[in-house]
Amino acid sequence: MAKTTAPLRLGIAGLGTVGTGIVRILQNNPDLIEARAGRKIEIAAVTARDKAKDRGVDLSAYAWAQDPVALAQRDDVDVYVELVGGDEGPAKLSMEAAIAAGKDVVTANKALLAMHGQALAEAAEDAGRVIRYEAAVAGGIPVIKSLLEGLAGNEIKRVMGVMNGTCNYILTRMESAGLPYEEVFAEADALGYLEADPNLDVGGIDAGHKLALLSAISFGTQVDFAGVELEGIGAISIEDIRQAADMGYRIKLLGVAQMTGRGMEQRMSPCLVPASSPLGQLEGGTNMVVLEGDEVGQIVLRGAGAGSGPTASAVMGDVIDIARGTRLPTFGQPAKTLRAARSARAAVSAPYYLRMQLMDKPGALAKVAKSLGEAGISIDQMRQYGHEDTSAPVLIVTHKTTRSAIDEAISDCRSSGVVIGDPVALRIESV
Amino acid sequence: MAKTTAPLRLGIAGLGTVGTGIVRILQNNPDLIEARAGRKIEIAAVTARDKAKDRGVDLSAYAWAQDPVALAQRDDVDVYVELVGGDEGPAKLSMEAAIAAGKDVVTANKALLAMHGQALAEAAEDAGRVIRYEAAVAGGIPVIKSLLEGLAGNEIKRVMGVMNGTCNYILTRMESAGLPYEEVFAEADALGYLEADPNLDVGGIDAGHKLALLSAISFGTQVDFAGVELEGIGAISIEDIRQAADMGYRIKLLGVAQMTGRGMEQRMSPCLVPASSPLGQLEGGTNMVVLEGDEVGQIVLRGAGAGSGPTASAVMGDVIDIARGTRLPTFGQPAKTLRAARSARAAVSAPYYLRMQLMDKPGALAKVAKSLGEAGISIDQMRQYGHEDTSAPVLIVTHKTTRSAIDEAISDCRSSGVVIGDPVALRIESV
Repeated sequence: MAKTTAPLRLGIAGLGTVGTGIVRILQNNPDLIEARAGRKIEIAAVTARDKAKDRGVDLSAYAWAQDPVALAQRDDVDVYVELVGGDEGPAKLSMEAAIAAGKDVVTANKALLAMHGQALAEAAEDAGRVIRYEAAVAGGIPVIKSLLEGLAGNEIKRVMGVMNGTCNYILTRMESAGLPYEEVFAEADALGYLEADPNLDVGGIDAGHKLALLSAISFGTQVDFAGVELEGIGAISIEDIRQAADMGYRIKLLGVAQMTGRGMEQRMSPCLVPASSPLGQLEGGTNMVVLEGDEVGQIVLRGAGAGSGPTASAVMGDVIDIARGTRLPTFGQPAKTLRAARSARAAVSAPYYLRMQLMDKPGALAKVAKSLGEAGISIDQMRQYGHEDTSAPVLIVTHKTTRSAIDEAISDCRSSGVVIGDPVALRIESV
Repeated sequence: MAKTTAPLRLGIAGLGTVGTGIVRILQNNPDLIEARAGRKIEIAAVTARDKAKDRGVDLSAYAWAQDPVALAQRDDVDVYVELVGGDEGPAKLSMEAAIAAGKDVVTANKALLAMHGQALAEAAEDAGRVIRYEAAVAGGIPVIKSLLEGLAGNEIKRVMGVMNGTCNYILTRMESAGLPYEEVFAEADALGYLEADPNLDVGGIDAGHKLALLSAISFGTQVDFAGVELEGIGAISIEDIRQAADMGYRIKLLGVAQMTGRGMEQRMSPCLVPASSPLGQLEGGTNMVVLEGDEVGQIVLRGAGAGSGPTASAVMGDVIDIARGTRLPTFGQPAKTLRAARSARAAVSAPYYLRMQLMDKPGALAKVAKSLGEAGISIDQMRQYGHEDTSAPVLIVTHKTTRSAIDEAISDCRSSGVVIGDPVALRIESV
């Protein structure tokens, strides 16, 4: 194997927990990394917002670049490691600069790739460069590699994942501690688990970015984040969690992507999954991805979705691949051959869990049943449990139906004036 | 990326469920495979024992080679796919012939690599060829790729796995149906789940071969199957399964490899694992591998460990890697740099579960307690449950101890004549 044996030189932009994690790995285990990579891997230069900050690692041996773009263009950098974050600004500019300057890129930036992955992949492939992003999805779990390489012989049927540890922490903590959403949200915030804009987490946006990347690889389509139906966890009450548990389910912020006869369906929404399934048993900040192929059947991958070590491990896997000479198109086939995604919203039917607060007056329940019937929805279970002053909560589990039918029924119930507040409708996913 | 775009031509030796699975994939999905591989993948020639046999796939377009060695040497073959099986004979001769003739090799043959992996890897690397073997370990689960590539930035601390579906089927079926080992073994045999030599399955040999391959990658050591402590599942009774369940455990044929201060410990043996852990919840023929790295923490991979589709999926992943130009040393670093394994037997201590049948005579239990004490073993739980004619079963859970202390205590109990039959000693693995 005639391969380059010269050291591979990294430029690392962003020295937060992930960036310093990479520095730590390369300083602690240089021989191990060299044995596996077949050549030395060195850090040539770094950059971050604040040069003076003490990050607990010795950076004195590395050049300091003025900004990410300057770093990406340095002659002594072979691989630009982008850990700046954000879907515009320095992250995007520096990645474009790196590609233009003939560098390979390794990134943990799901937002940037979800928004601009197609253009960046085309630019990289035109320039003969690679973009690797294992760390962008599910932290330390080698899910991009498994899907893009290991399962490359499969037609992918469905991909599912719990890929936002913060949301899973909130949902499992609500259940175990019996606390309302607002209180656990405040806890998570105090623990530093939330993004600066918490809606990225609890609104499902961050996990939606990840799902859009998995879809592109799975189905040979251009990344289509706009096609992801997004629904956050903010409306989930402790009551929903208890009722779901009572029926043998757990509520998870679950991403599902599947190709249907009507196009590609991508959903990121709170769903009920069987409590005894691997997804149902997932606790705390752990991530899980389920890959389903026509030949391989179902593969389940589980591990830490965030944190310095796991994310740095994923970045290092990509860096070592590049050092070994592994070169792949960003999404597994040349970017120019990826088809534009045709989005199918709500194409795949499923049973639904509904919770509404009904006015305590005669005929209210009958009105709800009628609305469901008119939307073509048949009822599997219905229970009115407990009773408050002037209203009564009602729970309904439907037979298989579509989201649009559910929305139609809810809208009808609302307009009839028997429903108080916002009804909750959660899909029951078969996993 | 200046890459070969000529078709990659396969020679497939062995047309059982896996070989015909590959034929089926390439006939059904040629465009998908070509898009991902960046070039066509074609079958040039095949061979198997019986040319006339109807295998349900059309082989008329492929040349028929007289035997595996002849196939491996054909000029029109780029990649030799070895599905012959066995650790000597045609499998070994043909793989050596393929390497000598300048072919890359993809194989599902765990036995051959476990016994001769070092020599074959050295020969392949001297010739500039690669040997890929994802299908050899845990069927469709991309565990070799995850460990060798995805987690390459980690110092691997421990690898564990339930990697023989037949044994897991037998153990879970014993529990769910309440049937004795012999009966479920006969069932599995009738269903065709067992190897021609069933000891390969129930004796732990097949799973031990797989563990030896994972150890080599994990620790940078030469494959050392002789260093695997092997213990089969034949001594497990329905009573053990019930008692374990009663204490919150399940019994699994579990492989564990870890590097200790005294050397590398490799064990393949029935163990107790918490019933609530991912390993404990594994049912039927499914496989699971747990990878633990210093940075990534614990990664759990689960999927089908055998069968036509899953195994063919793994082979195709390797073939597509080769088509894409990915070239790696067999065990992740050059074979000549792998250290000879220093085996540590029983270096890692653990609590143990013991079941013995005691003579129903005064002082028997005291004698057992004394033997354990003299071996330095302290007791966490002891119960004598039920009573037969002239003997009484006793169950003991110890605090952390070593296998050699357990063996010493058992030997002492035996020689004192208070024990009837063979005591069962199972490690309680922390997972």
